[in-house]
Parts: sequence; structure tokens; C-alpha cells
Amino acid sequence: MTDFAATKAMFHLPEGMIYLDGNSLGPLPLSAPADMERVLRDEWGEMLITGWNKADWMQKSTSIGDRIARLIGAETGHVIMGDTLSVKVYQALASAVELNPDRRVILSDSGNFPSDLYMAEGLIQSLDKGHELRVVAPEEVADNITDEVAVMMLTEVDYRSGRLHDMKALTQKAHDHGVITVWDLAHTAGATDVQLAACKADFAVGCTYKYLNGGPGAPAFIYVSPKYVDIARPAMSGWLGHDAPFAFEQNYRPHTGIERMRVGTPPVLALAALSSALDVWDMTNMADIRAKSKVLTDLFIAEVEARCPELTLASPRDANTRGSQVAFAFEDGYAAMQAMIARGVIGDFRAPNIMRFGFTPLYIDEADVIRAAKILEDVMSNRLWDRDEYKIKSTVT
Amino acid sequence: MTDFAATKAMFHLPEGMIYLDGNSLGPLPLSAPADMERVLRDEWGEMLITGWNKADWMQKSTSIGDRIARLIGAETGHVIMGDTLSVKVYQALASAVELNPDRRVILSDSGNFPSDLYMAEGLIQSLDKGHELRVVAPEEVADNITDEVAVMMLTEVDYRSGRLHDMKALTQKAHDHGVITVWDLAHTAGATDVQLAACKADFAVGCTYKYLNGGPGAPAFIYVSPKYVDIARPAMSGWLGHDAPFAFEQNYRPHTGIERMRVGTPPVLALAALSSALDVWDMTNMADIRAKSKVLTDLFIAEVEARCPELTLASPRDANTRGSQVAFAFEDGYAAMQAMIARGVIGDFRAPNIMRFGFTPLYIDEADVIRAAKILEDVMSNRLWDRDEYKIKSTVT
Repeated sequence: MTDFAATKAMFHLPEGMIYLDGNSLGPLPLSAPADMERVLRDEWGEMLITGWNKADWMQKSTSIGDRIARLIGAETGHVIMGDTLSVKVYQALASAVELNPDRRVILSDSGNFPSDLYMAEGLIQSLDKGHELRVVAPEEVADNITDEVAVMMLTEVDYRSGRLHDMKALTQKAHDHGVITVWDLAHTAGATDVQLAACKADFAVGCTYKYLNGGPGAPAFIYVSPKYVDIARPAMSGWLGHDAPFAFEQNYRPHTGIERMRVGTPPVLALAALSSALDVWDMTNMADIRAKSKVLTDLFIAEVEARCPELTLASPRDANTRGSQVAFAFEDGYAAMQAMIARGVIGDFRAPNIMRFGFTPLYIDEADVIRAAKILEDVMSNRLWDRDEYKIKSTVT
Repeated sequence: MTDFAATKAMFHLPEGMIYLDGNSLGPLPLSAPADMERVLRDEWGEMLITGWNKADWMQKSTSIGDRIARLIGAETGHVIMGDTLSVKVYQALASAVELNPDRRVILSDSGNFPSDLYMAEGLIQSLDKGHELRVVAPEEVADNITDEVAVMMLTEVDYRSGRLHDMKALTQKAHDHGVITVWDLAHTAGATDVQLAACKADFAVGCTYKYLNGGPGAPAFIYVSPKYVDIARPAMSGWLGHDAPFAFEQNYRPHTGIERMRVGTPPVLALAALSSALDVWDMTNMADIRAKSKVLTDLFIAEVEARCPELTLASPRDANTRGSQVAFAFEDGYAAMQAMIARGVIGDFRAPNIMRFGFTPLYIDEADVIRAAKILEDVMSNRLWDRDEYKIKSTVT
């Protein structure tokens, strides 16, 4: 059983703050500064170029990938770190489209994060072969899985509402129709009990700065299933995905396995911070996290609905179809959220009217949830916001 | 005039080591650990999600880009940080090829770093429009600039020999034939007096972990000239290159200017380390660096040729056609380099027989050069290596 009091004690949480925005950027693991200093001074400083071998820098992308694989139900050896999530989306999509060369439709939904759609647009324009990005409503995805579709690209959890897709059922239906799947785990890695292997997902990508607490701009990851990992052609065929990078051959030959999805030099310093965060994750299992997440989000909904009649739940009510965040709709949501933030409860706002709260069992507990709900009640019942004081100004999702 | 004693004092150089591999990975700036700790504790730790605004994280990619722009003769506002060099090569090349749609030849040379050629191969295969990657000998590039060529993609300095291309003349000839240029500055940014604007270079890319001392896996940069920056289509059209990233629109609209070349979330921690290194660069000017580099490399060649008749110069003898590194050919070069490393002189080896030494005026001075040459003399004249002890095992370039 995961000891959540122990995990909470391993993060720096500013005094008096209830941080419900870990679905945007997770907090600092207490061990990160010392771990980073060791990498800076003892590795970079003392080893210099020899750090690539002596400090195993070159292996970090796969060894850290394996630590994340456990959290997303992936096979060992099938996850590699690097680049940003958008680049990884491009990489997965480019490979997937090419593996289904006779079809021209990329199916996605309007609940996908815009960058995924933009990357698909960019790729389609580069390929210039008449591919169509077909964006349907989230609830219409299943009905749009047809034999026309080359690739289904979905983000499991809607970044606004927290609506959770059924990865298993959608992947099954996709495969029944010869469709290759690309799953974006931005809002599920570290949040739900993702089961890539059990769902037979083909490709998956995700970021590590949200629930995984890897720090601002932490590296992304990519997963390729055993079925495709040795036949997927990397569109970005970088030297570190080469079968023999240090032979400096003139022509590209992809590495076997997931290493072909490595492009350039690993971000050693960023991986060091992520590694500190994974030391906390090593103390957990995702079934516990998911169970606790449901308890926390259910509790928040119950408390807020009892206290704040002005707010309308904008997330699925059934915890089984919801990620680890809760959204409430409210006309003056932006201003009200600023009032919450001024009172130490950090959530986020998404236009036009969504107040979004992320629940992260590693460092948020029931007492935090109730305190946050009470502060929200205070803000709402006393109308502690000024519509005119705040202009809508967004932050990073 | 740059005060090189002052800059040298700003790096951690391990006791007794003469580090002649700064062309692979620069040393740790002494201020980096404290700077990084401040970003970790005061920014990530205390500000959390608000750091994107409060600590200006979102602006770092361009503000740091501008600090690098000064070092490579680029216009302010035309350099942006992010991703790895290979990804930036892909990005520049994809845009450049599309800007010359009626031509099918990408011209490069065998002195280019393999990853650049691999990325071109990968892009060509994705485009599937019959592009040809034409790789000629470095000295034959000029004669191969014809009206058939869409893009000329060259690394200015050969990573083995240190041979320096004439950017101005080749770019001029390219333009005379309607060819768009992509320059890779991996071995010239921070090493030579690059003049992108004066040479009218179209696109340029580079890494920051070599001469610029940004740390292992430090972010790359991309430059797009005023002529193309507002018309180049980003193949990787990520949300942070969108004109209004936080409007979360469903369709992509590129940002004006260099920001369209941003893809995903900026690597904040890696940029913090790079920023520490740039604090040293802020004390320099590249004309001084280039002049001192010529003095150091000329001195090393003279000393080694006087002391080590077994070694054959494999770099251009004229400093004006050489980057900031010196290569000597020697049959047992790998073993001899290991013997040098065991004696505290860190150089590198490139198959089949190249002993490579990088000279970095920021922290290498004449006394270091002479001491390194004396140790090399000792190794060579006393044959202080064991051919059998070392197998060829390469490190990162």
C-alpha cells in the first residue's frame, strides 16, 4: 500500500498553499536540489566528457523510460525519454501514418489538446498526400472509427473537463478496423492506472512536468508497442537513434527497439530533476494512486456542490470516466479563480468559464480538499472577486 | 578587450587537468550550481505554475536566443532556443525545402556531421517527392552549387579535421543560383567569429553544450533570416509556435517572427544552466575569441610538430580556414589519446586515426597549450601507450 503521508513529505509545498495545479506543473521534490547539485558538480564538473560513460548519461533516456513504463502499464524497454511532447506527437504520428499507407484519415477529437492537432496539421501539410485530420466530438469518436481511418490520435483525458476516454474499448475497435492508435497520456501518466500493454495501444506519448513532477519543461516520453517498435520508421532519424551512433556512418540505419525513437543528445540536467521525482514514484503503485484520486475528486465534488450552488460541475460525475481533475463552470470563473489563488488555493482557468482543479494523491490529501472547498465557499458566498480587476490572462496548461 | 584570465577563473576545471575537449562538452561555469539552485528553490519550488509569468520562463527561449545572436552575428530577435540540434536541423531543412518547391536536390558534404545527413534522409523519405541528398567532398561543394539545388546544408567546421568552410563565399554562390542555405554552427558558435547577417545566411542551427558551455544535453538554437522568418512554414507546428498559444484555437496559425520555430514547452532547467554560461560569454567579444583561438591553435601545431615527428597534421595549416580545433593523424591514435587522458590532457579520438584537440580561449591559455604539447611529446617519444590495452570505444562528439 502506498504511504501517501510519506510521499507528501517528499515535496516542497509552499507554506499555506493548497496546490491544485499539479496537472499543469508538479511541485519540487525535496531531493531535487541536492541531486541536481551532484550531477552538476560531481558529474558535469568533474567528469566532463567522460560523464557520458562514467555517469551513464547515455543510458538515462532508457533507464528513466523504464521507470515510467511501470507507471503506464508498458513493457520494459518500450519507453524512451527526450524532446517535448509536441515533438513526440509528431514522431509517433509520422511513424503511424506511414504504417498504414493506403489510408488518408487521421481521426482525433475536439477534446484533444490543440498542440496535438497542430502537429498533425503540420505533418499533413509536409506529407502533401491528401491526408485529412478529422476532428469529431469526444463522444462521437467510437462511431467514427471506420476502415477509412489510418490513425486514431487521442488524448486520454480532456485538459479542460477531465473526461477520460476508454482506452481499451477504443483501441479494440480501432484494431478491428485496421486503425493504428496514438495515445497522448499528458493528463493520465501519473494520474490514472494507464495500461498500455493490456489495452494493446500501439503508440503513446506523454510529458513529465505535470503529474510526474519532473520540473518546468521536463522531457517527454514515447512508447512504441512490441508489434511496431522494430518496424516503425523514425521520421526524425537522428544519430542517437542510429544502430551504431559512434561509428559515424554516412547513412542512417535505425537502432532495434525503442532506441530508434531517440533523436539527439539526451537532456542530462532535465533528466536529473525528473529522476528525483521518480524516486518518489518508486514508492507507489498506480492502483493506489487511482483509488485515492477517485476518493479525492469525489470528495471535492461533494463538498463543492454542498457549499457552492453557483457552480456547475463540468466534469463527468462518474469517477471511472474522469481523470484526476475536476472542472466547475462559472460565468466569472476567471475572476473567482484569481480570488482563490490570492487565498492560497492554486487552480487554473480555461476559457470560456472553466475553473479547473487537479488532484494529485502524492501530495494532496482529504484535509487539503476540504480546506480548498471551504475557501471556495467563502469566495463564492461572499463574492470575493472583482470582475473588473482581472483580465483573462492564461497560463500554461 | 576580453579578459581571458577573468573568464578562465569563472569555470570549474578539475585539478591538474588540461581540458582540450570543450568542442564536445564545455566545462561547468562556477556560478551554475547556485544559479540552478535558485531556479529550483525560488522559482519552481515557490512559484510553481506562476513561474511561467513571474520568473519569465516563457521568454527565456527568445531572451537567451538574443544573447547567442550576438555571438553568431545574427540580428536580434532571430534566434530561438529549444529541442536538440538534430531536431533543429530537421526543422530548418523542412522549411527551406518547402521554400524552394520546384527543386529536388539537397546538397551537403562528407564533412558534415552524420546526424545532419541522417535527418535529411529521414525528411526526404517522409516527403516522398523524389528529393536527392547529394553528398560531395567538402572541397567540391562550390562546384556543385547549381540551379538544380534546392538547399545547401553544411556544417561550417568539420568535426574531425576542423576544416572551416567559407560561409560568405558559399552563401553568395548559393544565392546566385537560387539555393537556400542551412548552416550548422555546432563547431563554430562560440569558436569563430560567425557573421550570419553579414553573410546573408538563410537558416542556421547549433548546439550549446560545446563551445558555449551550456551543459550535457543543453538546448539547441535555430536562426531564420529576416527574408524568411515570416514566410517559413514550421513543419513541426507546435502550440508554442502558434500566434496565440493560450487561446487554444483548434487550427494552427504561425506566430510572426522566430517564435514560430518554437515547438513545445521550453526546457527551463536546462536553460538556467546555459544562462550561467552566457554570463561568461557576456564578458567577451567574438573577434577577441577568434584571434586568441588562432594564436592557441597555431601554437599547438608549432609545438607538436617540433616535438612529435610521428604525428601528421590533419587540420588545415592556415588558421583562417580552420575552426578552433587541431587534428593530428597517428596510426595508434586511439591508444595514444588514452595515454594522454591518463596524464590529464583530455582530447578526443575519431576513427580511423584522428587525435583531436579543441582550443577554447575562455579557459585554455598558452601555458596549457605548451604543457599539453610537452605531455604529448612524452607520450610519443617514450611510446607510453599500449596498443592492446585499449579497444576503440568512442564517446560523444
